[in-house]
Amino acid sequence: MTYQFAARMRKTPRSFIREILKVTEDDTIISFAGGLPNPALFPVKEIREAAADVLSDNGTGALQYSTTEGYLPLRQWIAERYRRRTGLMVSPDTILITNGSQQSLDLIGKICIDRDDPVTIEKPGYLGAIQAFSLYEPVFHSVELNFDGPDIDYLRHVVDTHSPKFFYGIPNFQNPSGISYSKEKRRKVADILSDSDTLFIEDDAYGELRFRGDELPLVTEYLPTQGIITGSFSKIIAPGLRMGWIVAPPEFYTQLVTAKQASDLHSNYLTQQIIHKYLTDNDLDSHLLRIRDSYRRQRDTMVQAIEEYFPPEITITRPDGGMFIWATLPDTFSTMDLFDIAIKDHVAFVPGDPFYTGCGPTNCMRLNYSNADDDLIIEGIRRLGNAINRLLKE
Amino acid sequence: MTYQFAARMRKTPRSFIREILKVTEDDTIISFAGGLPNPALFPVKEIREAAADVLSDNGTGALQYSTTEGYLPLRQWIAERYRRRTGLMVSPDTILITNGSQQSLDLIGKICIDRDDPVTIEKPGYLGAIQAFSLYEPVFHSVELNFDGPDIDYLRHVVDTHSPKFFYGIPNFQNPSGISYSKEKRRKVADILSDSDTLFIEDDAYGELRFRGDELPLVTEYLPTQGIITGSFSKIIAPGLRMGWIVAPPEFYTQLVTAKQASDLHSNYLTQQIIHKYLTDNDLDSHLLRIRDSYRRQRDTMVQAIEEYFPPEITITRPDGGMFIWATLPDTFSTMDLFDIAIKDHVAFVPGDPFYTGCGPTNCMRLNYSNADDDLIIEGIRRLGNAINRLLKE
Repeated sequence: MTYQFAARMRKTPRSFIREILKVTEDDTIISFAGGLPNPALFPVKEIREAAADVLSDNGTGALQYSTTEGYLPLRQWIAERYRRRTGLMVSPDTILITNGSQQSLDLIGKICIDRDDPVTIEKPGYLGAIQAFSLYEPVFHSVELNFDGPDIDYLRHVVDTHSPKFFYGIPNFQNPSGISYSKEKRRKVADILSDSDTLFIEDDAYGELRFRGDELPLVTEYLPTQGIITGSFSKIIAPGLRMGWIVAPPEFYTQLVTAKQASDLHSNYLTQQIIHKYLTDNDLDSHLLRIRDSYRRQRDTMVQAIEEYFPPEITITRPDGGMFIWATLPDTFSTMDLFDIAIKDHVAFVPGDPFYTGCGPTNCMRLNYSNADDDLIIEGIRRLGNAINRLLKE
Repeated sequence: MTYQFAARMRKTPRSFIREILKVTEDDTIISFAGGLPNPALFPVKEIREAAADVLSDNGTGALQYSTTEGYLPLRQWIAERYRRRTGLMVSPDTILITNGSQQSLDLIGKICIDRDDPVTIEKPGYLGAIQAFSLYEPVFHSVELNFDGPDIDYLRHVVDTHSPKFFYGIPNFQNPSGISYSKEKRRKVADILSDSDTLFIEDDAYGELRFRGDELPLVTEYLPTQGIITGSFSKIIAPGLRMGWIVAPPEFYTQLVTAKQASDLHSNYLTQQIIHKYLTDNDLDSHLLRIRDSYRRQRDTMVQAIEEYFPPEITITRPDGGMFIWATLPDTFSTMDLFDIAIKDHVAFVPGDPFYTGCGPTNCMRLNYSNADDDLIIEGIRRLGNAINRLLKE
């Protein structure tokens, strides 16, 4: 017996990110490697009450098969939230409930990508998106992310030259870099794409986590028939519920529903109702204030610790929201080597390498601040600074 | 703006099954069309208690991100269940938790099928599998299902001639036909495949729903390195929870985990823990006895009503378990035409057509008995008999 796997399985990104995360499961390690929200902020009591209410009020209904599109009251809540938060008018009929952003990306890959199709992502780009899309075997054309968003000239060149199926980006507090697009760049991205058949896939998983500055428009606001938004309850309620959504124009939506039905019929119906009940009975805005306050403090603590313990030649991003800081070390430096040294000091991060689809710089790393308290952030950054200093002197 | 979808989206089966199910949402219609378990048997109270306990005992943990493979105690429970039910020894390390059988089929398609790869299914075959696999663009080679399992000579021919990547089948109470493989045929299927590189995908979604006759061995028992089993909590607990699993040999399992991670990271962690808690605190066997008793009665009621109200030239399967009866009308008959007539009498079923990947007979239909009580079964079959008689006389 010889197993014959599909060619796509040879194109999946190397799995050392899984290995890294396994190493960091050790409780004695201070980990800035994951992308976990702060569990101290999960609304456990409120979810417990919502679950009890849903199962008491109409438990039988919540346990039966349901529609592929998702629980209508939850889709109505999401539509109303966009209206209140950004002024964007979307119809519940264009919202598909998914098992979190990762499934949204998988479904988008599934309906858009034939083998060798060109697609565009940011550089560095979100690892989960690279993994999801890779299984549909596209050719990636990455566009460098500057401090205020994508390199606009290069994006125009890529769109003109390759006509990518879509440009996938995270305009708010990008993973891994923490960078946000400026308002001007949002407009420019929309301008470039509006002359083309390239869709904009706007991953807004972190949009509600702004702790500094003003709310900026979604790129999709400028691209009503060409923008697809993916959203998630993972960062605003809890990720273990695996629940997110896609907003898409009608023609695209129809194809998404077909793909979702073939992928798993529909998302967990009980959980959809629990989330809706939680959102109806509680004030999400006060809950988000607590998350934002905490992440602002954690971010500030990490930035201050970096300023104290890292050598001055290291540059970092200073995010206005989200969960990540991106650090760039001197050119000759390898963060893969640093990882091996740091892990001996019981501190972990993710080297930049897996966030690039082709060759990328070897001297970058992603630091997550949302899942450690202030003391651990300071101690972890101190250890990491020591490891960097040792490596610099070698 | 022109939307450019992947070629696979043009290969999805026509969607009239969705249309049919929409028609039958009308409350005044007696529907034998769906594949819904009987909601009166859902353990609502027990699930409510399990949810409260999980969220009280370790709610924070249950709401965080988790491992792709799934909650280990749940995988251990599944392994132990196989040992007790069938004697099959499987390791929890070879069990992947999925969002129900439909996702299991999607993941298997994803890791196995390149465009134009040969795969084999039963004829008639399970619609959900046809949908899941179609999106990976295989060439289907279907093998006729006889009263006691697949046409063995033709299966051998297909395996020898086309070397399909896998043979997908439902040996216990098949959907749509209700047919089960005899013990002899299970052995023969295994013999044919064991000389080949063709895997057996054993969908056992209905295996626990036997209400007559003795438990038969899984085909995978004869094919330890070549059999992949898919199981589901949808029919034994509740489908709204969207939770199932795959058992696979280690080399295959590794690829499944990669595909699952790219598809949605992991299944709903809270729900995995709720299901495990439910299974630990309650006696599943007594619960299954209630389901089996009910389905046996519903099945007998439908068979008796068919004998009373259908013309004698119509043949039906007489399942020993599961949820479906397959009826075959005279050759010249169209069950698509019958559907249009029957719906005017407020009774619905699924015509046989969507269960065939190529041309199939036009004179078959699937009748579901698990989701209607005895009075409605009798009245629905009476109406359907009238509709058949009218059509026969035309």
